[in-house]
Amino acid sequence: MTDPQLTSQLSHLAAGPEIVAIPGPSVMPERVLGAMHRSMPDIYSGMITTVIDETFDALPAIAGTTSRAFVPIGNGHAGWEMALSNTLSRGDHVLVLDCGRFAQIWGEMAEFNGCRVETITAPVGYAIDPAVVEERLRADTGHEIQAVLTVHVDTATSIRNDIPAIRAAIDAAGHPALFMVDCIASMGCEEYRMDDWGVDVTVAASQKGMMTPPGLALVWAGPRALAAHQGADLRTRYWDWTYRTEDGPYYLRFCGTPPVSLLFGLHEALQMIAEETLPARWERHTRLAGAVRAAVEAWAAPEGLSLLAMQPSQRSHSVTSIRTGSVDSIELSRICRERLGVTLGVGIGDHADSSFRIGHMGHVNAPMVLGVLGAVEVALAELDAPVGGSGVAAAAAALDG
Amino acid sequence: MTDPQLTSQLSHLAAGPEIVAIPGPSVMPERVLGAMHRSMPDIYSGMITTVIDETFDALPAIAGTTSRAFVPIGNGHAGWEMALSNTLSRGDHVLVLDCGRFAQIWGEMAEFNGCRVETITAPVGYAIDPAVVEERLRADTGHEIQAVLTVHVDTATSIRNDIPAIRAAIDAAGHPALFMVDCIASMGCEEYRMDDWGVDVTVAASQKGMMTPPGLALVWAGPRALAAHQGADLRTRYWDWTYRTEDGPYYLRFCGTPPVSLLFGLHEALQMIAEETLPARWERHTRLAGAVRAAVEAWAAPEGLSLLAMQPSQRSHSVTSIRTGSVDSIELSRICRERLGVTLGVGIGDHADSSFRIGHMGHVNAPMVLGVLGAVEVALAELDAPVGGSGVAAAAAALDG
Amino acid sequence: MTDPQLTSQLSHLAAGPEIVAIPGPSVMPERVLGAMHRSMPDIYSGMITTVIDETFDALPAIAGTTSRAFVPIGNGHAGWEMALSNTLSRGDHVLVLDCGRFAQIWGEMAEFNGCRVETITAPVGYAIDPAVVEERLRADTGHEIQAVLTVHVDTATSIRNDIPAIRAAIDAAGHPALFMVDCIASMGCEEYRMDDWGVDVTVAASQKGMMTPPGLALVWAGPRALAAHQGADLRTRYWDWTYRTEDGPYYLRFCGTPPVSLLFGLHEALQMIAEETLPARWERHTRLAGAVRAAVEAWAAPEGLSLLAMQPSQRSHSVTSIRTGSVDSIELSRICRERLGVTLGVGIGDHADSSFRIGHMGHVNAPMVLGVLGAVEVALAELDAPVGGSGVAAAAAALDG
Amino acid sequence: MTDPQLTSQLSHLAAGPEIVAIPGPSVMPERVLGAMHRSMPDIYSGMITTVIDETFDALPAIAGTTSRAFVPIGNGHAGWEMALSNTLSRGDHVLVLDCGRFAQIWGEMAEFNGCRVETITAPVGYAIDPAVVEERLRADTGHEIQAVLTVHVDTATSIRNDIPAIRAAIDAAGHPALFMVDCIASMGCEEYRMDDWGVDVTVAASQKGMMTPPGLALVWAGPRALAAHQGADLRTRYWDWTYRTEDGPYYLRFCGTPPVSLLFGLHEALQMIAEETLPARWERHTRLAGAVRAAVEAWAAPEGLSLLAMQPSQRSHSVTSIRTGSVDSIELSRICRERLGVTLGVGIGDHADSSFRIGHMGHVNAPMVLGVLGAVEVALAELDAPVGGSGVAAAAAALDG
Repeated sequence: MTDPQLTSQLSHLAAGPEIVAIPGPSVMPERVLGAMHRSMPDIYSGMITTVIDETFDALPAIAGTTSRAFVPIGNGHAGWEMALSNTLSRGDHVLVLDCGRFAQIWGEMAEFNGCRVETITAPVGYAIDPAVVEERLRADTGHEIQAVLTVHVDTATSIRNDIPAIRAAIDAAGHPALFMVDCIASMGCEEYRMDDWGVDVTVAASQKGMMTPPGLALVWAGPRALAAHQGADLRTRYWDWTYRTEDGPYYLRFCGTPPVSLLFGLHEALQMIAEETLPARWERHTRLAGAVRAAVEAWAAPEGLSLLAMQPSQRSHSVTSIRTGSVDSIELSRICRERLGVTLGVGIGDHADSSFRIGHMGHVNAPMVLGVLGAVEVALAELDAPVGGSGVAAAAAALDG
Repeated sequence: MTDPQLTSQLSHLAAGPEIVAIPGPSVMPERVLGAMHRSMPDIYSGMITTVIDETFDALPAIAGTTSRAFVPIGNGHAGWEMALSNTLSRGDHVLVLDCGRFAQIWGEMAEFNGCRVETITAPVGYAIDPAVVEERLRADTGHEIQAVLTVHVDTATSIRNDIPAIRAAIDAAGHPALFMVDCIASMGCEEYRMDDWGVDVTVAASQKGMMTPPGLALVWAGPRALAAHQGADLRTRYWDWTYRTEDGPYYLRFCGTPPVSLLFGLHEALQMIAEETLPARWERHTRLAGAVRAAVEAWAAPEGLSLLAMQPSQRSHSVTSIRTGSVDSIELSRICRERLGVTLGVGIGDHADSSFRIGHMGHVNAPMVLGVLGAVEVALAELDAPVGGSGVAAAAAALDG
Repeated sequence: MTDPQLTSQLSHLAAGPEIVAIPGPSVMPERVLGAMHRSMPDIYSGMITTVIDETFDALPAIAGTTSRAFVPIGNGHAGWEMALSNTLSRGDHVLVLDCGRFAQIWGEMAEFNGCRVETITAPVGYAIDPAVVEERLRADTGHEIQAVLTVHVDTATSIRNDIPAIRAAIDAAGHPALFMVDCIASMGCEEYRMDDWGVDVTVAASQKGMMTPPGLALVWAGPRALAAHQGADLRTRYWDWTYRTEDGPYYLRFCGTPPVSLLFGLHEALQMIAEETLPARWERHTRLAGAVRAAVEAWAAPEGLSLLAMQPSQRSHSVTSIRTGSVDSIELSRICRERLGVTLGVGIGDHADSSFRIGHMGHVNAPMVLGVLGAVEVALAELDAPVGGSGVAAAAAALDG
Repeated sequence: MTDPQLTSQLSHLAAGPEIVAIPGPSVMPERVLGAMHRSMPDIYSGMITTVIDETFDALPAIAGTTSRAFVPIGNGHAGWEMALSNTLSRGDHVLVLDCGRFAQIWGEMAEFNGCRVETITAPVGYAIDPAVVEERLRADTGHEIQAVLTVHVDTATSIRNDIPAIRAAIDAAGHPALFMVDCIASMGCEEYRMDDWGVDVTVAASQKGMMTPPGLALVWAGPRALAAHQGADLRTRYWDWTYRTEDGPYYLRFCGTPPVSLLFGLHEALQMIAEETLPARWERHTRLAGAVRAAVEAWAAPEGLSLLAMQPSQRSHSVTSIRTGSVDSIELSRICRERLGVTLGVGIGDHADSSFRIGHMGHVNAPMVLGVLGAVEVALAELDAPVGGSGVAAAAAALDG
C-alpha cells in the first residue's frame, strides 16, 4: 500500500456514502440487497415457491387492482413489449399520448412490431390535454384505434398526466380502445388506482419506486385486456399471458427459470411497502417532492434555474426536471459528482446542457433529499450561478409540519 | 429465544452448508454473489460502462466465436425467443432435433410464434443420429427448411449431441438452413467451438455453467444469422439485434435499463473463467462427470440404478440423469434433502418417480461431487436399495490421477 | 480480460465451493454472514439493545447453566484471560490438566500473569486420568491450589476429557479449588452441562461450534467463581465482571463500544441453534464424527493412517486428529488444498509432517464431511499411500440409520 | 402480506437510507461491509497472511510514525488497557489531562488496575491549558509521575487538545513521563503526527475514522514506550507486546485466533484511506466540520443553540457537540430519528436534555452532512425553537470553494 501521509491529491468532499439521485435505478434499501445475497435454492419446491406466491399475491394491491400481475424478467421495455404483444395484432391502430419522451418510445416499439401509430404530443412543459384526446377519439367513428398508450409520469420531463381525466375523455367519446398506462416512474411513489381509474393494462418495473434492482418488469392486465388477448396476433410464447397462467409447475409464470435473486429482492421490497403502507408512501413522496420544488423556486432567478413542468398539478412526485437557463448543467453535474458525491440525472434530449433531473423515488427520505439539494446549492455557488436564494433552506422549511 | 437444551427434535445430518445439486441454477460462487451486493451506480457513465464493455468483450471467446454476443435480460427461454425472432418469419419451416425435452419445447415456441415445426426425435437414451438429419435435409430439395434447432446438452436426459457431426450432416446434404444450438446446460462446462463447428446462433443463459444467478440470456449470432436477420419478419423491438447494436447510448444493448446487479455478477464470473481458463474448466467437468458416472456404475444392480444415457460418448459432463429402477426416486430425494442436506434434481417427464439428476456444472469441485454422491449412498442404504458396490469409493478412485 | 480459450493452466478439481475443514474458524452459515452485513445502528437504543438482550438471555442454556455469560470482544485467549483475571491473585497456585496443547498454553498465561502453575500431563493419545487428579488434590492438604484448569476438548489432539469424572475426583479429594474448563473446541457441538457437572468457569469462543466469525469470547461464571471474584487481585477494568454487570448503560457489558457486527452474527447463530436444538446438534456431531473415524479406521494400514486418540470414549465429536505414519501429511494437505479444494488442519507440534486434523464442528453436515473424506481418499491414492480400504465408503455406511 | 392500499399509518419522511450521525460507530463504507462478507479462509497460510501483513505495514503511516502497531481484538477500552498494561506497574503515578469525559474514564481504568491517578480538568468548554501541565510537571521534581494520559479529541465535548503544545510543556518541564494519547475519535480524520509530536503511545480503534465495525483497537508504541515495557509489572499475556512480536506463527500478533472478518474490513478501509490520502482526508474533515459549525452559528439565538467548545481552534473536525439552550434535545433527537431518518448523538453527562452531538467522521461527505443539518433544521422548526437563521444554507455556503 502507498503511504497515505505522503501522497497528495485534489481535495474533495465526495468520499462518503455517495448518493445516486438519478431517476432510476433508484437507491436500493440495504434490506433488499441483503435479501438478494443468498445461495440458489431449489427452484421446484420449498421456500422459493412461498416467495413467489407471496409476491404474486401482493402485487395487485400495489397497482390498485384485483387483476393479476405478470412479472416478466426484463426491464421496462420488456413490460411494454409484453403489453403490446398480448393485446394487439399487426396493423392495429394505436394512439400514443406523449408529454415528453417515453410514451413516444413505446409508440416506436408498437410501430416496429407492426402497428400503425399516431401520436398526440403535449406542448413542451405540459401534460396531455384530455380534451384533445376526447376530440381525437370522437373523430374515430369507426373505432379503428385499438389502444391508447400513455405514461403516468414521464421520466424525462417529470410531467404527470391526469390518468382519470384521460379515462373520462375516452369514456366521453364512447370509445372502446384499450387504455394502457406506463407507471414505470411512478409505481409505489404516486397514487395510482388501476381499477378505479379504468386502466386496462398497467406497466411498471422493479428499479424505481419498487426499490429492487433492474431486471423485472411488472404488468397488470385487467379483464378487457385479457379479453383482447384472445384475439391478439402479436402474441409470442415468451410473453404470452395464457402460457404464464396455465396449470402446471409454477415456473410457467416466468416462462422458464425464475429470476431467483431478483425475486428475493422484490419480495423484501414488497414487505417494506406493506410495512410503510402505500398511502404513507404517497404522502412521503408528495412532501419530499414539494421540498425539491421549493428549492428550485427559491433558487429561481433570471437566466437561472426553473422547473420544466409549468403546471403545479402536473409535477411528478418521484422525479423533478430542472432547466438551468444560462448555467451549464453538465458542469454543475460534474461538480456534484466528482467533488460532492452526488450524481444527478442528466437532462434528456435537446436540453442536455441546460437541464438536469433529480430522482426522489422509492427509498428516499428527508436527509437524502436535503443532502442532494445542499450539494446542488454548493455547486451553484461554485459556478457563480444566478440564484435567488437558498434552495436548501427553503426545502427544509417546506418539510416542516 | 427458546431454550435449546430443553426442546427436542428429530435428529438430522442436514444442518450445514446445503448443496443444491439440481442442474441449474447451479451453486453460485461467493465472489459472484458478493459482486452483486452493491449500490446502484449511475447507469449512464463511469464504472458500469467499463463492466459492460469488458463483459461484451469477453463473451465471444466463451462460445468459441468472433461473433458478437447479445445479453437480453431474461432466462433461457428469452434466449430462444431472441434467436427465433431475429432470424425467422411467420410460416418458416423449422426442423427440430430432440434428444430429450428442451429442443422440443424450443420447437413448441417456434410453432406458437408462427413457424411450421417438424421434429426428429432420437430414441430414448440416445443422441440425435446425424445420418437421420442428413437424410431429412437431402429430401428437402426445395430448401423449405429455414433453420435446424437442437441442444448441445439436454438438461432432462443429460445426453450430449455431437454438434460437429450434425453440422457435417447439414453440409453433406448441401443444405443452407441456419443451424441454431442451445448450449444452456453446457456453456462454460463442455468444449464448444461455435465458429469451428459452423453454428450460426448459439443460445445460453447465466444460471448454469456461467455461474451467475438467473436473469440473463446469452445469444451469439454469426454472420449467416445476421444476414438472415435482415429479412426476418418475426423481429420485435425488444429482441431486435439491429436496435441493440445501433450507435447511441450503450444501454441500447439492453433495450432499456441495464440489469446492473446481474451484470456485476456475470462480470465477476467471467473473470473467474478467465483465471481458470476454458480448457481447464472443460477438463474439470470431464473428470468430475466421470466420477459421477463411476459412482452410478458401481451402484448398478438388477432393479437398481443405471445411467439414462446409453452411449458413453453421449453423456454430458455437466449433468447426469440416473434411472433408479425399483427404487423410489422421490423418497430417495426426500431423504437426501431433509436428512442429509443435498437437493437432487427431479426426474423430468414420465419417470419422475424412477429417476433423478445430479447437476455438476459451473462452480463445482471434488468435495462437492463426492459429498453429493456420498449422500446418495447413505440414502440408498436407508432405502435398502439394491446396490452393487460403493459408488462414492468408485468416484474417489476415478478422481485419482 | 484475457482470452479463456487460449490460455492454458494446470488442470485441477478445486474450482468450486472450497471447504476449509480446519478446526476453527469453522464454516460460517450464510445466514450468519448475511446478518453481519448491515449498516451500523445506533448503539444506545433501538434494535441493537434487543439483539444484545436476546443474546445474553440465550447464552446460559448453551452451556447448560443458569449463570450469566460474559462476552468479551476477543478470541479464546481473551476468554482465558478474563477467567484468570477475575478469579485469581498473584501468587495463587494453579493446577493445569493437559492432554495436548491448549490447557498448557492457558497455564503459561496463568504463569505469565503471576500465578504458580503446576501441570499434570496425560500420556500422548490419552485423556486426563481423574485418579491422578484426585491423588494430587488429596496431597494438597493445605488447599494451596486455588484453581484447576483443563479443556473439554483439546483442539490439537482431538482428545476429550471426562469433565464429570474430573469433577468427581475433585469432590472425592474434598478440595475447594475452582474448576475452570475451556470448551472452545466443543461448545455447541458436544454435550456439556456446566451446572450438572459442577464447573465454576466455562470459557468458549465464537468461531468454532458457535458458528460466528472470530472476535468474541464467551465466559460463563458460576456462583463460586463470582464469590472468588470478590477477592481476586488480578482484576483489571477491561475484563472485570463487576464492572460489566453494573447498573447503567448496557454497553458496560462490553466495557465500551459493543462489537455490533459480530453480535448480529452471534445472534443469528443462536437463533439457528435454537431452531435445531442442542440435543440434535450433539447427536449430529456424534454421528458425523463417527463417520470420520470410520473412514480413518477403514484407511488404516501398517505405516499408514491412524487415529491419534487411543480410546474411543475420549475421541472428540468436533475435531479428529489423524496420524499419517509414513505418509507425508504436508504433501497430503497440499494436494487436498491446491488440487481438490479442501483445506485440512495442520498437525500441531512435533508431528506436523505426519499428522493432520479435520474439523467437523458447527455448521457441518453429511455432504461436507463426505466431501472432505472423499478428497482425502483421492489424495491418498495420488500419494500411493498404504490404505486398508475405502474410508469414504465406510463413512457413508456409518451414516446410515 | 397485508394490503398496503388499505392500511393507514402516521406519515413520516424517514423511510429511506437512514443516517446514523452518532460519533461512532460511524457510517461504514459499502466496500468495507462487502469485504467482510466472505467465508472463513485458512488462518495459517495463504491470503489471510497477505491481508495481515499489508495491514500491519500500512498502520504506522496512519498515525504518522515509524513505530509498529498492535491490533488487539477489542474496542477502544481494550486499547487503553493494552497501553497501560504494557508500560506501567502497580503503584505508578499517572497524570490525566481531561477536557470532557474520556480521559477521565481512562484514568479510572488506570486507578482500578493499580495506579495512583491525579487529574487535571480543563474548564468546561475548553481544552487542556499546556501551561498548567508544565507547572504541575515542574513541581514533580522527583519524577514520580510515570505517564501523562490525555485525548486528542474528546468524543463527549468535541474539544481537541493541542498535542504538540502539551508535548512542549512536558519538555519545558524536563519531565521524563511517557506521553500517551487517545486518538479514538480523531484517527484518520484529523492531522496527527505521532513521531513529530513526540507521543510515546497512541491508542485508536476501528469504528470511527478508521471506517471498520467495532472490534479492533489500534495501539502504536514508540521506542520510549517499548523501553518502559521491559520493566512494567502490569503486563499480562493477552495484551503483551513482547508476546505479540515473538518469532513464530503470525497469529501471535493477535494472541490467538485472528479476527478474520474485521481484518478483511480494516484492510479494505486502509486501501480506501491510501486512495484518498491522509492530507485529503484531513482537509475533507476540516471543511465538513466547518460546515457543521457554520450551521450552528447560523441557528444560534438567545435561549437557542450554541457550540459547546468555546475556542475555534479547539473544535474537533470529527464530532461537534451542540448545546441546545431552552430547546429539548431529547425531543429534537426523537423527531430527527422517528420522522426524518437521522439519528443524532445524545448529549453525554449532565446535559443530556440540552445538548446533542453530530458525528462527521470517517466515511462522510457533503450530502451526508447537509442532509443531517437539514433534518435538524426541520426538527427545530417543528419545535418552534428560537433560531437565528438557516443553518443548512450557511453550511452549503461554507462548503463553496
